[in-house]
Amino acid sequence: MKNKPVLRLGLPKGSLQDATLEKMAKAGFNISVSSRSYVPYVDDEELSIRLIRAQEISRYVEHGYLDCGITGHDWVMENGSDVHEVGEFLFSKVSRRPARWVLCVPEHSPVKSVKDLRGKRIATEVVNLTKRYLKKHGVKAEVEFSWGATEVKAHELVDAIVEVTETGSSLRANKLRIVDELLSSTPRLIANHTAWKDKWKRHKIETIALLLKGALEAEAKVGLKMNIREPNLAGLLKTLPALRNPTVSSLSQKGWVAVEVIIDEHIVRELIPAMKAAGAEGITEYPLNKIVY
Amino acid sequence: MKNKPVLRLGLPKGSLQDATLEKMAKAGFNISVSSRSYVPYVDDEELSIRLIRAQEISRYVEHGYLDCGITGHDWVMENGSDVHEVGEFLFSKVSRRPARWVLCVPEHSPVKSVKDLRGKRIATEVVNLTKRYLKKHGVKAEVEFSWGATEVKAHELVDAIVEVTETGSSLRANKLRIVDELLSSTPRLIANHTAWKDKWKRHKIETIALLLKGALEAEAKVGLKMNIREPNLAGLLKTLPALRNPTVSSLSQKGWVAVEVIIDEHIVRELIPAMKAAGAEGITEYPLNKIVY
Amino acid sequence: MKNKPVLRLGLPKGSLQDATLEKMAKAGFNISVSSRSYVPYVDDEELSIRLIRAQEISRYVEHGYLDCGITGHDWVMENGSDVHEVGEFLFSKVSRRPARWVLCVPEHSPVKSVKDLRGKRIATEVVNLTKRYLKKHGVKAEVEFSWGATEVKAHELVDAIVEVTETGSSLRANKLRIVDELLSSTPRLIANHTAWKDKWKRHKIETIALLLKGALEAEAKVGLKMNIREPNLAGLLKTLPALRNPTVSSLSQKGWVAVEVIIDEHIVRELIPAMKAAGAEGITEYPLNKIVY
Amino acid sequence: MKNKPVLRLGLPKGSLQDATLEKMAKAGFNISVSSRSYVPYVDDEELSIRLIRAQEISRYVEHGYLDCGITGHDWVMENGSDVHEVGEFLFSKVSRRPARWVLCVPEHSPVKSVKDLRGKRIATEVVNLTKRYLKKHGVKAEVEFSWGATEVKAHELVDAIVEVTETGSSLRANKLRIVDELLSSTPRLIANHTAWKDKWKRHKIETIALLLKGALEAEAKVGLKMNIREPNLAGLLKTLPALRNPTVSSLSQKGWVAVEVIIDEHIVRELIPAMKAAGAEGITEYPLNKIVY
Amino acid sequence: MKNKPVLRLGLPKGSLQDATLEKMAKAGFNISVSSRSYVPYVDDEELSIRLIRAQEISRYVEHGYLDCGITGHDWVMENGSDVHEVGEFLFSKVSRRPARWVLCVPEHSPVKSVKDLRGKRIATEVVNLTKRYLKKHGVKAEVEFSWGATEVKAHELVDAIVEVTETGSSLRANKLRIVDELLSSTPRLIANHTAWKDKWKRHKIETIALLLKGALEAEAKVGLKMNIREPNLAGLLKTLPALRNPTVSSLSQKGWVAVEVIIDEHIVRELIPAMKAAGAEGITEYPLNKIVY
Amino acid sequence: MKNKPVLRLGLPKGSLQDATLEKMAKAGFNISVSSRSYVPYVDDEELSIRLIRAQEISRYVEHGYLDCGITGHDWVMENGSDVHEVGEFLFSKVSRRPARWVLCVPEHSPVKSVKDLRGKRIATEVVNLTKRYLKKHGVKAEVEFSWGATEVKAHELVDAIVEVTETGSSLRANKLRIVDELLSSTPRLIANHTAWKDKWKRHKIETIALLLKGALEAEAKVGLKMNIREPNLAGLLKTLPALRNPTVSSLSQKGWVAVEVIIDEHIVRELIPAMKAAGAEGITEYPLNKIVY
Repeated sequence: MKNKPVLRLGLPKGSLQDATLEKMAKAGFNISVSSRSYVPYVDDEELSIRLIRAQEISRYVEHGYLDCGITGHDWVMENGSDVHEVGEFLFSKVSRRPARWVLCVPEHSPVKSVKDLRGKRIATEVVNLTKRYLKKHGVKAEVEFSWGATEVKAHELVDAIVEVTETGSSLRANKLRIVDELLSSTPRLIANHTAWKDKWKRHKIETIALLLKGALEAEAKVGLKMNIREPNLAGLLKTLPALRNPTVSSLSQKGWVAVEVIIDEHIVRELIPAMKAAGAEGITEYPLNKIVY
Repeated sequence: MKNKPVLRLGLPKGSLQDATLEKMAKAGFNISVSSRSYVPYVDDEELSIRLIRAQEISRYVEHGYLDCGITGHDWVMENGSDVHEVGEFLFSKVSRRPARWVLCVPEHSPVKSVKDLRGKRIATEVVNLTKRYLKKHGVKAEVEFSWGATEVKAHELVDAIVEVTETGSSLRANKLRIVDELLSSTPRLIANHTAWKDKWKRHKIETIALLLKGALEAEAKVGLKMNIREPNLAGLLKTLPALRNPTVSSLSQKGWVAVEVIIDEHIVRELIPAMKAAGAEGITEYPLNKIVY
Repeated sequence: MKNKPVLRLGLPKGSLQDATLEKMAKAGFNISVSSRSYVPYVDDEELSIRLIRAQEISRYVEHGYLDCGITGHDWVMENGSDVHEVGEFLFSKVSRRPARWVLCVPEHSPVKSVKDLRGKRIATEVVNLTKRYLKKHGVKAEVEFSWGATEVKAHELVDAIVEVTETGSSLRANKLRIVDELLSSTPRLIANHTAWKDKWKRHKIETIALLLKGALEAEAKVGLKMNIREPNLAGLLKTLPALRNPTVSSLSQKGWVAVEVIIDEHIVRELIPAMKAAGAEGITEYPLNKIVY
Repeated sequence: MKNKPVLRLGLPKGSLQDATLEKMAKAGFNISVSSRSYVPYVDDEELSIRLIRAQEISRYVEHGYLDCGITGHDWVMENGSDVHEVGEFLFSKVSRRPARWVLCVPEHSPVKSVKDLRGKRIATEVVNLTKRYLKKHGVKAEVEFSWGATEVKAHELVDAIVEVTETGSSLRANKLRIVDELLSSTPRLIANHTAWKDKWKRHKIETIALLLKGALEAEAKVGLKMNIREPNLAGLLKTLPALRNPTVSSLSQKGWVAVEVIIDEHIVRELIPAMKAAGAEGITEYPLNKIVY
Repeated sequence: MKNKPVLRLGLPKGSLQDATLEKMAKAGFNISVSSRSYVPYVDDEELSIRLIRAQEISRYVEHGYLDCGITGHDWVMENGSDVHEVGEFLFSKVSRRPARWVLCVPEHSPVKSVKDLRGKRIATEVVNLTKRYLKKHGVKAEVEFSWGATEVKAHELVDAIVEVTETGSSLRANKLRIVDELLSSTPRLIANHTAWKDKWKRHKIETIALLLKGALEAEAKVGLKMNIREPNLAGLLKTLPALRNPTVSSLSQKGWVAVEVIIDEHIVRELIPAMKAAGAEGITEYPLNKIVY
Repeated sequence: MKNKPVLRLGLPKGSLQDATLEKMAKAGFNISVSSRSYVPYVDDEELSIRLIRAQEISRYVEHGYLDCGITGHDWVMENGSDVHEVGEFLFSKVSRRPARWVLCVPEHSPVKSVKDLRGKRIATEVVNLTKRYLKKHGVKAEVEFSWGATEVKAHELVDAIVEVTETGSSLRANKLRIVDELLSSTPRLIANHTAWKDKWKRHKIETIALLLKGALEAEAKVGLKMNIREPNLAGLLKTLPALRNPTVSSLSQKGWVAVEVIIDEHIVRELIPAMKAAGAEGITEYPLNKIVY
């Protein structure tokens, strides 16, 4: 008897773990982590989940211990892992900005550009990225691995740091100044080259990517429904952003149509007043789980 | 170069903070509070948020430090602030009742009406409201500011208290009896008079009010969809409360129509059995984010 | 003046409490528990809620202190309560499996079947169920009531235990082996026989059952909407499981129709790729509160 | 090779666990509980600790699975266990009062004595104690096992309860009235009869009892040291309670002696002012770990 | 039958509560606070405890609702209460510095002295203290009551604040500059004038003061014991600060004496090396509960 | 004006932080960490504290950014830092065992010795220690840096791990077998070579070492006092371990002496029964803060 095939998927343990499991649940894969087992439960028998530090996932995907994994582009680069990139995602609902690895110095440091770091000492979690960056700029400097709390070191222990930031607020709070950006990074679904060539595994990976993308799209969108008199329809449609066609359906009530659109949640605050002005009635906004175009 | 205009909005810090931020998010304004900064982040560049005690917001709106703010009607009254009231909201989903400031005494106190308080001592957080109330009734009594835990004082330290309550359960638990109600209060959006005259600011304030109202409406409503044979439609429509017209749309399947209504969540438990009895099939209830009529 | 009738409903206190209150809220009954009162608040004046240990509910329904209650089938059996069973529910979203009371021994125990327990000692929370089970198999053994942490006892203090499990993972973690299953149990809505004969109470109980069932159904389902060209409709419909008819409505745009279906969330991951392949566009998935067929 | 002998000691799991482990540590036995193992670590190779519900300990001591254990006198009685009682302890520093199992009814219940319970229903965790008590008074009533939250039941579900209390404050808060006391209970060190006859085990058990008693004594005592002129010594000694002799030692400084006494902490607040008045100087109070007379 | 006399003592509720209860316990009065009762339990039948906001205690002592209370000197002043001050205490072990109410402005504010506040707005919790201070300096300015988070207001909402600080670190973190100090405040035991004249109450209040002072003294002191050869004694004694006489007692071993001293914990780190150099052996340091000279 | 000299001391941030600060407090240096500042407050103006990861401290002591620091011997070795070792400490009261870095494999792995790792992959946090160890044994294998959760990797991701353990219980819980020990490590006080040559700094460092050692000694010891008749003294002294002389002092009461000894807390449980048997009366055990011989 042949075994059922299983796809081994690595997800980031630690600070990104909860967000990732929540996104996976939205995509339709419910995962529960138990303190008693290192293999989380997932309600899909074709999947086997492993929780591994984001920093290490690309390494184990490359070696083939994992078929695929979700990790940051930064750690793929830091590890120099040779993997197939399947897709890119944006996880953070609030900022929707990528993570950026930046070279920082104290606000009043004389260092103005990477050139000023010649002969200095730099602390960072991404030693390889930093060394490559310095080499590219022809700067010789000492790079040391930092086990954490890197921001604090910039004031006393080293001359500069390379640290990750989303909005820059933590850096400002530590009175640091950004000198340069080394890398901008977003979460990626990556696959082992061999797994990607396997037809069954590739189809499974692509399904995960499709559903995850659909779930992430849906987080930033909402549905709007409204009724409007037919003569006002054209005016209403002009208020809408250039989207795929809204769904217009006829109502039993003569002279009225129902309009339904999916729009970016961000523009709702401008659109609803405009729609009302255009004659829309009974505007309702509802949440979405997934969108697949 | 001219700066972009910004509206300065005060939101209540403390016990109402989480509820208010949640409502604002439903209205489409995502706000995140950081322990490192006293200015919260909001994903709308036209807004600048300040978190201030509900007790103080009206004062700063009146002075013009804030263009507008959300606070209770009670504190506007206590401060005697001269501000423009833009709208009234009901925040609490469970009780949907306003907060009431009431005059209380211990269960077995001889005090039966405000008249009996002549020469007594009253503790309260709303000293001005209480003094005005006593004056209106021609009663001279001592009013002292209470820093909190006012319920407990009524039994030993003072003769009566003026305290806020929603359902009265905390008063009952403290064995207190309500003698009279001084004021019933709901959250309000208030604006500085000058800001309200500024065209751009007024439009922005009105948009916030519209969306917030839409989000609060939606909390208490749900959408219902169902299919029904056309001959049964009239019977079904009779089960519905006198609402704006339900949306009836024709289906491809001959003789059937789809009906969609937005109704108060509270009556769902009576309506669904009635609709089923009227011939509705495949009744589904779905959540709403906002409703704007 | 006659009092309004009230239905007294018992809900399980303790580990199932939060889940039960959440399901009741989805069914449309918002209940809030206060530490100051033993009678929870519910936003339905026709209901009076009592929180009682799941183990005891059937006893108080039988005696008539409660008109009805939600509890596990296992405790109805353990107590041997004579009550009317109104309906069965599945609460756990993740596993959707019933709870099972199983006879367990340590992995390396010589006990292979219930017959091997002759003269041994068994610890359990369900003493009556266990005694009946032993009697049925003609085995004489000592059964003692366990106040908790029963799994641990199997290794030292007793020879076997009868314990409840859903997925078996806690048993495996304790290195226990399942010998036999005594009973499989799901949550039930049960009613007192007299209350069930009262017309008003029975109607009220049936409404609760209907709405609760609708809410539980909805947890495992989602709505899908999409647009498709009419010629592709037949192909699309073939991808769907044999369900009640999907709702197909005509769009204003010539040659296109809108399709809406309610499906099991579990098959979304297979269905969406298939629908897309069949020509569906703008597929959106949305959440449901309730489904009543 | 012969194994080293080991004494198996059961300690109460749950609400008394932390207090018991703290007392054991004061007695000189440091125990650490790990979530990974059901056998706690203790820094004495001659001991093996088991954490078991207080309700069950006497049963397993009687059977011989445990050599000895610490549990309440109430549960020894409830279980009717035939064990050797080694010693009695008082754990609670604040109240130092024993736990009392009392028969309670609602404040306004007509029940005035146990006789009034004829034909009624009583809920309790101590079914056997209650049945024996009723039998002693010749009262026939139904006794049912309560899984917890017994206080609440007295108002609706049953006619009376038998519940445990220390200060009575929880009963008063639940508006219950005490009708009678069934049993007063303190923690006991109990031993299996066979273990008690084993010379090595008995010596070990007695050592534990001695040190635990010494540690508990010390909790309620303090040491006082002071210097005093010899002529004032007699006066000082009169202020002291009739204790074992205080330690009086001569000082190098002529005419002065040092006095050291161990006294009940409770009387320090009266004694220190009195000692000062008697001429004592440099009075210092210091804490004790153990006292063994 | 005459009732036993009882002293009513007010202790500060809120941020100082835990520290105060801990000090009272060290003084020998064990108090336990229950969420069910507004009267805390104390193991002294002659005391009745009330927990009241520090801000309000002096008011209720003055009125006679309390016989005495522990509160800050600042709030006695702010309330202008006419009470008897029994004693002063220092509670904070770490800093041992009094609380200071200071006038603050943003770091870069043009305000350099109180004179610059003419016509400005000042926010503070101590409105009366601030008004008196301004009057003393002949400055007219608006003073408004701040409900909290006062530091933040100095940057936007008002021109200056009067705030309390111990080490100034919170002010620095908020980028505020201290312009002047209005008041330095320590905890005080205060008594109602009538209670102070009552012989029994006064004796009881003085006992509390004596024991509390003894406990606070002891927090900052330790005991040191050591043995030394008699010829080295004189040298050793020179290392000691000019204290009351150390206790020197003769040992059985010829030529040796034991020395015992009570010293400030702060100087132990200098003293122990010096004592060792002077020939002391077996130096042990032990903790103290109370010291009464 | 010359500045006062200051010693810069690095303490481990993270898992060891609380234990280290507690030991420092026992030694007489009270340190408080604020979330607003990266420089903790210490009540000694001659010290300046930095909290740095244990892994990095030796590096910054070597560079001279710190004068001295407390860190594990393991990290000094891993970093290959050239520093002066001042003293060794044992922090853990429970086990008092050093941390051990061990080579582990899954229980059923074929690997029996380091030789079997040829060509395999090893994950560890101590890459340098592991490489040196392999080299010493002439084994070529791949060593990769593990960011944490190393135990889990041994089962799937790599062939062996080098991990730290105290009691081995976490390894056993993960079903790992120890193959070899690479290094045993205890906390050390290390100093920069230049700082060690500075007279003032060296004296300060030695004082810290002396007091810290005194505080750690005291944790495992207690004081015992007792009275005994002179004829029984010789017998009593025989029960004592071969210690420095106990302090025997004469009492005023004829024929009695007081005996005081400092002993290891561990043997109290054997000693007290023996002392009692030898005639000792009023044995009291008291805690110690510090012991300096």
